[in-house]
Amino acid sequence: MSHNCFGHLFRVTTFGESHGPALGAVVDGCPPGIELTAAEIRHALERRRPGQSRFTTQRREPDDVKILSGVFTDGNGRQVTTGTPIALMIDNTDQRTKDYNEIANKFRPGHADYAYDAKYGIRDYRGGGRASARETAARVAAGAVARKVVAGVSIRGALVQIGADRIDRERFDWSEVERNSLFCPDPRAARRWEDSLDEARRAGSSVGAVIEVIAEGVPAGWGAPIYGKLDAELASALMSINAVKGVEIGAGFAAAELSGEANADEMRSGNDGRAVFLSNHAGGVLGGISTGQTIVARFAVKPTSSILTPRLTIDSLGGDTEIVTKGRHDPCVGIRAVPVGEAMMAIVLADQFLRHRGQVG
Amino acid sequence: MSHNCFGHLFRVTTFGESHGPALGAVVDGCPPGIELTAAEIRHALERRRPGQSRFTTQRREPDDVKILSGVFTDGNGRQVTTGTPIALMIDNTDQRTKDYNEIANKFRPGHADYAYDAKYGIRDYRGGGRASARETAARVAAGAVARKVVAGVSIRGALVQIGADRIDRERFDWSEVERNSLFCPDPRAARRWEDSLDEARRAGSSVGAVIEVIAEGVPAGWGAPIYGKLDAELASALMSINAVKGVEIGAGFAAAELSGEANADEMRSGNDGRAVFLSNHAGGVLGGISTGQTIVARFAVKPTSSILTPRLTIDSLGGDTEIVTKGRHDPCVGIRAVPVGEAMMAIVLADQFLRHRGQVG
Amino acid sequence: MSHNCFGHLFRVTTFGESHGPALGAVVDGCPPGIELTAAEIRHALERRRPGQSRFTTQRREPDDVKILSGVFTDGNGRQVTTGTPIALMIDNTDQRTKDYNEIANKFRPGHADYAYDAKYGIRDYRGGGRASARETAARVAAGAVARKVVAGVSIRGALVQIGADRIDRERFDWSEVERNSLFCPDPRAARRWEDSLDEARRAGSSVGAVIEVIAEGVPAGWGAPIYGKLDAELASALMSINAVKGVEIGAGFAAAELSGEANADEMRSGNDGRAVFLSNHAGGVLGGISTGQTIVARFAVKPTSSILTPRLTIDSLGGDTEIVTKGRHDPCVGIRAVPVGEAMMAIVLADQFLRHRGQVG
Amino acid sequence: MSHNCFGHLFRVTTFGESHGPALGAVVDGCPPGIELTAAEIRHALERRRPGQSRFTTQRREPDDVKILSGVFTDGNGRQVTTGTPIALMIDNTDQRTKDYNEIANKFRPGHADYAYDAKYGIRDYRGGGRASARETAARVAAGAVARKVVAGVSIRGALVQIGADRIDRERFDWSEVERNSLFCPDPRAARRWEDSLDEARRAGSSVGAVIEVIAEGVPAGWGAPIYGKLDAELASALMSINAVKGVEIGAGFAAAELSGEANADEMRSGNDGRAVFLSNHAGGVLGGISTGQTIVARFAVKPTSSILTPRLTIDSLGGDTEIVTKGRHDPCVGIRAVPVGEAMMAIVLADQFLRHRGQVG
Repeated sequence: MSHNCFGHLFRVTTFGESHGPALGAVVDGCPPGIELTAAEIRHALERRRPGQSRFTTQRREPDDVKILSGVFTDGNGRQVTTGTPIALMIDNTDQRTKDYNEIANKFRPGHADYAYDAKYGIRDYRGGGRASARETAARVAAGAVARKVVAGVSIRGALVQIGADRIDRERFDWSEVERNSLFCPDPRAARRWEDSLDEARRAGSSVGAVIEVIAEGVPAGWGAPIYGKLDAELASALMSINAVKGVEIGAGFAAAELSGEANADEMRSGNDGRAVFLSNHAGGVLGGISTGQTIVARFAVKPTSSILTPRLTIDSLGGDTEIVTKGRHDPCVGIRAVPVGEAMMAIVLADQFLRHRGQVG
Repeated sequence: MSHNCFGHLFRVTTFGESHGPALGAVVDGCPPGIELTAAEIRHALERRRPGQSRFTTQRREPDDVKILSGVFTDGNGRQVTTGTPIALMIDNTDQRTKDYNEIANKFRPGHADYAYDAKYGIRDYRGGGRASARETAARVAAGAVARKVVAGVSIRGALVQIGADRIDRERFDWSEVERNSLFCPDPRAARRWEDSLDEARRAGSSVGAVIEVIAEGVPAGWGAPIYGKLDAELASALMSINAVKGVEIGAGFAAAELSGEANADEMRSGNDGRAVFLSNHAGGVLGGISTGQTIVARFAVKPTSSILTPRLTIDSLGGDTEIVTKGRHDPCVGIRAVPVGEAMMAIVLADQFLRHRGQVG
Repeated sequence: MSHNCFGHLFRVTTFGESHGPALGAVVDGCPPGIELTAAEIRHALERRRPGQSRFTTQRREPDDVKILSGVFTDGNGRQVTTGTPIALMIDNTDQRTKDYNEIANKFRPGHADYAYDAKYGIRDYRGGGRASARETAARVAAGAVARKVVAGVSIRGALVQIGADRIDRERFDWSEVERNSLFCPDPRAARRWEDSLDEARRAGSSVGAVIEVIAEGVPAGWGAPIYGKLDAELASALMSINAVKGVEIGAGFAAAELSGEANADEMRSGNDGRAVFLSNHAGGVLGGISTGQTIVARFAVKPTSSILTPRLTIDSLGGDTEIVTKGRHDPCVGIRAVPVGEAMMAIVLADQFLRHRGQVG
Repeated sequence: MSHNCFGHLFRVTTFGESHGPALGAVVDGCPPGIELTAAEIRHALERRRPGQSRFTTQRREPDDVKILSGVFTDGNGRQVTTGTPIALMIDNTDQRTKDYNEIANKFRPGHADYAYDAKYGIRDYRGGGRASARETAARVAAGAVARKVVAGVSIRGALVQIGADRIDRERFDWSEVERNSLFCPDPRAARRWEDSLDEARRAGSSVGAVIEVIAEGVPAGWGAPIYGKLDAELASALMSINAVKGVEIGAGFAAAELSGEANADEMRSGNDGRAVFLSNHAGGVLGGISTGQTIVARFAVKPTSSILTPRLTIDSLGGDTEIVTKGRHDPCVGIRAVPVGEAMMAIVLADQFLRHRGQVG
């Protein structure tokens, strides 16, 4: 996990700025013989694509991914991975650079502008450059590969909170998630959220969100003690997504309020000698290693920093000024974070799976 | 960040089980010429030492650390780092192995027992082995070295919540933290917590906690885009601490409930052209890079899993059984997590500082 | 150094097969503010380009490199690096796939065919796929970036032996290297080599070579003890080049034949207190760390494995067969290895420079 | 491979100076369930131990290794690895520090003194500190663990050249290697070498050597393309040994003198469909991946730099001076490099085995 690279045996390096010629990812260490086509990756990209509803940015890119390397046609005519690096490239075609001229010399509050400038002395300000949410397209593309590496694992995400408004856990229905444009598992909450998002959009404001991502089918034993812990790597992976400010596993922060008795996930013997857990406060991870239960993670996304209300800021010469961020933006960047969270979960699991197989066999 | 190693340029590898001959850390990549004595590290270890109050485990080890390598006497008679690996070793002297015989073949709910067994097929069950909170002594020792690498940065931690009882933020006073055995910055909360901890201890139960760690004096510019983000590495480092279930930066999960206007940290021009921020919802990190504000992180620790109430579990043969975890234990493992959280923050910052200096100069 | 990635702070990940859509490199960790244009990289690629003389393969690709990310126009109108990943892409345009159909199911002796098949179960056989010398174009492109990171260091390479015929060290003249198509520093040897290469080409045979690469201007202090040694990383980098079978530093294998007295490079005091060495058997590296002398490395390249004489081999079904490798090939792949060796030296030095600056300041 | 750490899944971090309290290694990533005792490691250390004959340094340390972590007694009473880090510690007991006072302020030619001082500004000069050949004890200890990870592979080393005097390849007999104190496979050469070593010792001089290390039983498929190549990692591992100036694989530098026809290792079909090679110029590696043939590597060790003839040098104040290195030293440090080379080969193979199993299964 260094600079722009994530993973150990299944390594994803992403590159690209919002308004450069292209962005993409190199997936190194993918096992050979896995069927993989650009169409599948494109399908995954569709889910995070901007411009799908009035609640997400109006940038309308086809996100047409190309596989530049690492696949070949096998004896059965299938295109499969060869074990060599899989380079994925997505051209940037819808770049309205003129929209961003105003921000060339002003630092937008809540954005990475000031920090990048302090670090590097220069930044590609167009659309946020490297810090743009557009970078997550490369993660989703790489995540589509990762999913195939852990094909027996089902990874799903849902929006469980917008602003202060949470779903009703009793009504949680995974099949609803794909039926609305908000990845919401509770249809009543979805309707409320549509109203509040409309309101935020009209006001030029924005709202935050909480996303839950789960993985079913992970066997007991993936992960590593101490620093390569499954939950520590999930925390890093999810916190690395743009605008994320918090990550929790299982009961998460609420665990602090439980007694030891309530928090302990008791066990009974299953048919095959494996444990059947009577609860899942641990979120499927104990001591950094999977227990065979569903892996459960949640992460909080701050409200989109691009808003129409003028905000106080400074310019690159150090003078006081104000800024209004115009252009195409999401009132809630958390919506698109759902497939990104799934992708990062998939990448972490693919890496941990290969590492486990390497060490333990 | 792999298996038992953390960091990139400033690398910490820890080793050791709770009841093996010794545990320790190898700190690789420490800059040369930094004064370092065993006494200083011992001082840091004192703060996390068990047996200090009735609220922490009664294991009474002196935690006498030895520096096995990497230091030498300079021309001024000071013992300084030489740039070579600093090996730190802490002998395990107070090992009451007989206490743990009962758990050899039973998996304690909430502990790593089952997961380790599923992964490795064998585990050192004595005191939790590698998954024991005792491993954090090695982190604190390494953290003492890290602090000296970022000597201009002040890193402090405090307990801000026990169970559901939070401190009063209006009364937050850093000087109080060292005056009570609970690292509590609010003296009224400290008194309430003492009562509830006494109660938990009498009941053989346990409670969770939330810890806040801050770093003042980090200049703008440390961190890296995308996967080497300062906040992502903090998340990984803090989540890797035993029993941690959640991590947040700045406003954290509460950021989801803010509007874009409220969340944006506005800026004014400071004397030296650097930004003065009017708030710190970001917790000192934007786009994965420090902004010059105070770095603020919080993490949630679950209630100690070792409790006196019998819990349902299975044994290593897959049979149903019950378990009561006797022995020396903390009613709130979160207390000792305060210096551990500080140590991990120091390690992350030392690493990011060296990486920044390497890339940018 | 993992799979397809080289370097620690200055990290180069390459991707691509000989006959896939494209190949390239992602350079992660490059310092910001360095002027960089595609034209410069293209210039570096020109030096290794096939089709330049009758002694190198007749594949005539323009090697037109695109910079996909990581650069931006600064305030002075210069295109500079921004500190984010620099993705470099070279399209594969001259792919005569039909040439390679015969080798789809036969393993060419001396090639990676059999080993790839044993490892991955599938391989892109076209032109050698990932194992093609064409992959070195990505290294040379990345090396062009690395050279700019260590702009004060002069890195040069020369062919010092073809077959058993060595240059006359007395006649070594760096200015000659760019005057002939064989990178030969001794004009008389160049003429002899042209004859022997013509002969090899006519006979459908091939010859090996030894390349010397030097770096002048490296200050004392780069490198690291034990496993991150400057010479160990050079050895890895040069051995990773296709067809390389040996690497030596300074006196190299000849050092084994020297006495301790003859081998020791004595020192005298220079004007600035730095050492002036009276000889350079060490090749500029002691204890894994640069001494301020010229870094000297040599590597041996085996004869091109693609030859016109039929060779015994087996096919993918395990049957005995014969093979003749037709198509466009170098009689001496070692010639093109000169700029590749320079590139790898540059990458190692850029990485060690940044690591040194990180650790020591 | 960074600073003081080697390997990717099977990671070895070593620490310690020649005259500090102790040196050792942390082996992280070792698979669980492998029987491992200190006695076995001690046995391996015996082979490299100084003081065994009049040709090696007279330092007489017992090299008594302790296993501090990572092993536990399994159900059958065997002490086995648990999958957690294995910390190995060797106390430094025979430290005659007074011998080294003279070199505190003088840089010994051929030693790392000057380079360490230039890099770090301070060095532990006693016995060479971190750059002492004593560090290789930690490698041999870690190598003993690595051998057990690849238990089906036979790894052996031999001295094949001392000074300019090579063994007769026709007389190569592995059983001879353990019969003389020079690891020499040719008894006639062993007698000649004893004479020349006696002469060097009497003259206070030293001689270089070439070591060959082989691994039999490595299946086809270990390794990785491009930068994680099996031969590239071997080159790095062997070049990282003290005093090594050259590494070659298979035919090595001699390959440069072969024709393509002579160099190609032809194949015939074996009983099981696997290739039977008719020669092994490749040294068991093609395209960075093992072929199933014997892995063959050689490395050149320069003559011991500590000699009794006065040499010109400078002191730490930049003044001209002379130095004679007294004390206990080997006339040929290459002898003890034999078990070290075996250890590094074992570490590389253990790592590549686990990585292969991780990626390919």
